[in-house]
Amino acid sequence: MNNFTEDTIVALATPPGIGAISVIRLSGKQSLKSTDSIFRGKIKLSEASSHSIHYGRIYSEDNTLIDDVLVSVFKGPNSYTGEDSVEISTHGSPLISGKIIELLLKNDVRLAEPGEFTKRAFLNNRIDLAQAEAVADVINSRTEASLKGARNQLDGLLSQKVQALRSDLINTSSFVELGLDFAEEDIEFIDNSELLSRINKIAAEIENLLSTYSFGRVIRDGVNVALVGQPNVGKSSILNYILKESRSIVSKIPGTTRDIIREEVSIDGILFKLFDTAGLRLSDDEIEKEGIQRSREAIKNADIVLFIRDVEQEIDINLLNEISSLAGKERIIIVLNKIDLNPGLQSEGMVHVSALTGEGMDKLLEKLKIMSMGSAFYTEKSAVISNLRHYQCLAKAKDYLAHAVESITNKFSGEFISVDLRNAENSLGEIIGVVTTDDILNNIFMNFCIGK
Amino acid sequence: MNNFTEDTIVALATPPGIGAISVIRLSGKQSLKSTDSIFRGKIKLSEASSHSIHYGRIYSEDNTLIDDVLVSVFKGPNSYTGEDSVEISTHGSPLISGKIIELLLKNDVRLAEPGEFTKRAFLNNRIDLAQAEAVADVINSRTEASLKGARNQLDGLLSQKVQALRSDLINTSSFVELGLDFAEEDIEFIDNSELLSRINKIAAEIENLLSTYSFGRVIRDGVNVALVGQPNVGKSSILNYILKESRSIVSKIPGTTRDIIREEVSIDGILFKLFDTAGLRLSDDEIEKEGIQRSREAIKNADIVLFIRDVEQEIDINLLNEISSLAGKERIIIVLNKIDLNPGLQSEGMVHVSALTGEGMDKLLEKLKIMSMGSAFYTEKSAVISNLRHYQCLAKAKDYLAHAVESITNKFSGEFISVDLRNAENSLGEIIGVVTTDDILNNIFMNFCIGK
Repeated sequence: MNNFTEDTIVALATPPGIGAISVIRLSGKQSLKSTDSIFRGKIKLSEASSHSIHYGRIYSEDNTLIDDVLVSVFKGPNSYTGEDSVEISTHGSPLISGKIIELLLKNDVRLAEPGEFTKRAFLNNRIDLAQAEAVADVINSRTEASLKGARNQLDGLLSQKVQALRSDLINTSSFVELGLDFAEEDIEFIDNSELLSRINKIAAEIENLLSTYSFGRVIRDGVNVALVGQPNVGKSSILNYILKESRSIVSKIPGTTRDIIREEVSIDGILFKLFDTAGLRLSDDEIEKEGIQRSREAIKNADIVLFIRDVEQEIDINLLNEISSLAGKERIIIVLNKIDLNPGLQSEGMVHVSALTGEGMDKLLEKLKIMSMGSAFYTEKSAVISNLRHYQCLAKAKDYLAHAVESITNKFSGEFISVDLRNAENSLGEIIGVVTTDDILNNIFMNFCIGK
Repeated sequence: MNNFTEDTIVALATPPGIGAISVIRLSGKQSLKSTDSIFRGKIKLSEASSHSIHYGRIYSEDNTLIDDVLVSVFKGPNSYTGEDSVEISTHGSPLISGKIIELLLKNDVRLAEPGEFTKRAFLNNRIDLAQAEAVADVINSRTEASLKGARNQLDGLLSQKVQALRSDLINTSSFVELGLDFAEEDIEFIDNSELLSRINKIAAEIENLLSTYSFGRVIRDGVNVALVGQPNVGKSSILNYILKESRSIVSKIPGTTRDIIREEVSIDGILFKLFDTAGLRLSDDEIEKEGIQRSREAIKNADIVLFIRDVEQEIDINLLNEISSLAGKERIIIVLNKIDLNPGLQSEGMVHVSALTGEGMDKLLEKLKIMSMGSAFYTEKSAVISNLRHYQCLAKAKDYLAHAVESITNKFSGEFISVDLRNAENSLGEIIGVVTTDDILNNIFMNFCIGK
């Protein structure tokens, strides 16, 4: 078992591969001493002041020069982790950084686990748990909107909101608990209508937060869009129009898009992940069959399905029914392509487009956006839920509160109410890590990259 | 045209992609001021002391927080480039680093060209040209031996040697030039035998350096080895044995290795790049034909060709002749595989192996090593040529010296000798950059990565 508070840890902090520089990061009590054991510079790093940079050379045990480096010294608690930390900036060769890490591992240092630097920042109270989770979101942000959302969370917008709700809840439950303490004297510290009103107010705010999730998830993770339809209706052409560049093979031969092609495009800050599926049709070709199976998977996993047909072919009702059973009707947009071949055509409930002329494509994109965002509101500086764990904690808190309301309405004893309120408090506390378990922490940080 | 001494430049210094941190690097007069225009911290960076680190936040023009960062300040001349420099350490997201670079480009900064930071280090006399070239070699090193060679060059081992030869040459030619200045007085400052002896000594040392090139190149770039032979003789099995893992498809059906498979393996510090070629045979299959064409290319480009046959098939003399015409006999090792099927067999001039039992494989590897290293000597701390440009400069210098010797022997006028000696001096000067042109510099630095 690793000792998370005592060990000194090391990892490559920059992306792997060749670049101008690589940075190796250490954190823990031995950071300075361990680095000193392989580093030769003008002064000992253990005698250096915090936030100072030192030029020197790293040597192996057999006195071979490995690299000349710049070492940044951070003294706890004024570091990312809150502990003594070191960053070693080397020439950007994996061979060099690997060699230096290898040397450090022989000097009272062990390899960091994924997210362990950030985990230590949390354990040392530099940031709360929701902020720690935001660090990974910031790094993985693909669009400006997702970055902004993650930044807000890292800056504590969500944490403050949750903290405020939790305080209200603690205040409220303290009245109930006081009532229990003085039960024999039969003093009432809060009457039931006041209690109900307070709980309902908190529940309503939790409900508000919950309602931001569909929007927050879209912002954070993007929207999966599957393009499906019979062969040769123009799926690839529509994809290419959206991408404004040709990456998917466009061909007149039905069934050429054998593999599912995934492309990503950001439209007004929303990340759309577009899957161009194989033409859905029966086929004896083994490879083709496999492609069709993958199409079905893509449809199941899609947030939105573009069911594409063209003006030359009748709509295939069986196919549409099959897709509806996979995806659900409310997630399907029916697109009528090649409208340039039959400009007068009017078909109810379909978006008319021509991937050739671009006609109607703006309406299609608008529809995609509206369908992605739902009816969610969003202001720059409001707390938004984008993380399933947070959603689940809030939903649990809401359930506990609903249960408390029921108990009050049914005039149950204060003990029942108190337990529900306490559980709701804890559920909120889980979001920011006031209440946590090893399992929760492990689940969160195992998804981080090593070095963060 | 970019002004290389006046502009302030910026680039991402860490490998592209997602990681814990990314580092953006600036160099030039405006580095601190430009960063200050987007950075908010406790103090102005332009007022910070050199080698200090500052926490703060980067904001866009519209006041959006982009990221919280650590900024390292380096004041010229105590920086890599010799100029004022800044390193901005951000969360490791390409979106964030891209955004920050974009903001800097609006603040008197331009994108750095490949190798421009190192070029500035050279132009500002922080390192000489051979050292600058070694920076790229250090970064691209794939084996410990290549790293050691590049490190020696970066530490100036080659530069010192070349500088010493050049000084000797300047001393020698000064005698010749004095003789020219005092030609009318007919004073001889150095007699011809002394002059010849000095020049020959320098030429011999240049010859020594030149002789290290085959070794140096192998150490730096590795050795291309093509495995060729008729289908089904066991090329892939031998490759796999060498790799000690199965990556190439091994199959009984002739002609299955359609694409050339390249694998890299380090044997005693030498990087071998192994190309498993398509079975060389006539084929009507279009894809197969293409594979055979690629085999021929691989043979042409190989440093060593392993011509593989097995004990079951007669040697195909036509094929061997064809390979000899592509690669040259001295580069071919004939390998007799499947010796386990006929243990008693003795065939002159072939390495007997069994990829199945491993028999003879040690001898094959030994032969590969000997053939790669040639007769070159190498001691840890001797100057080694590993760069074609250096080789060519030394070869030019040697030719000029040979010409000077000829002029002296033929008792030509001192003017002729002087010109040759001067040219030889300049050729040596080109290596370390005492003598250089824009073309030479551009050629060198365009092969660097951006940010270095």
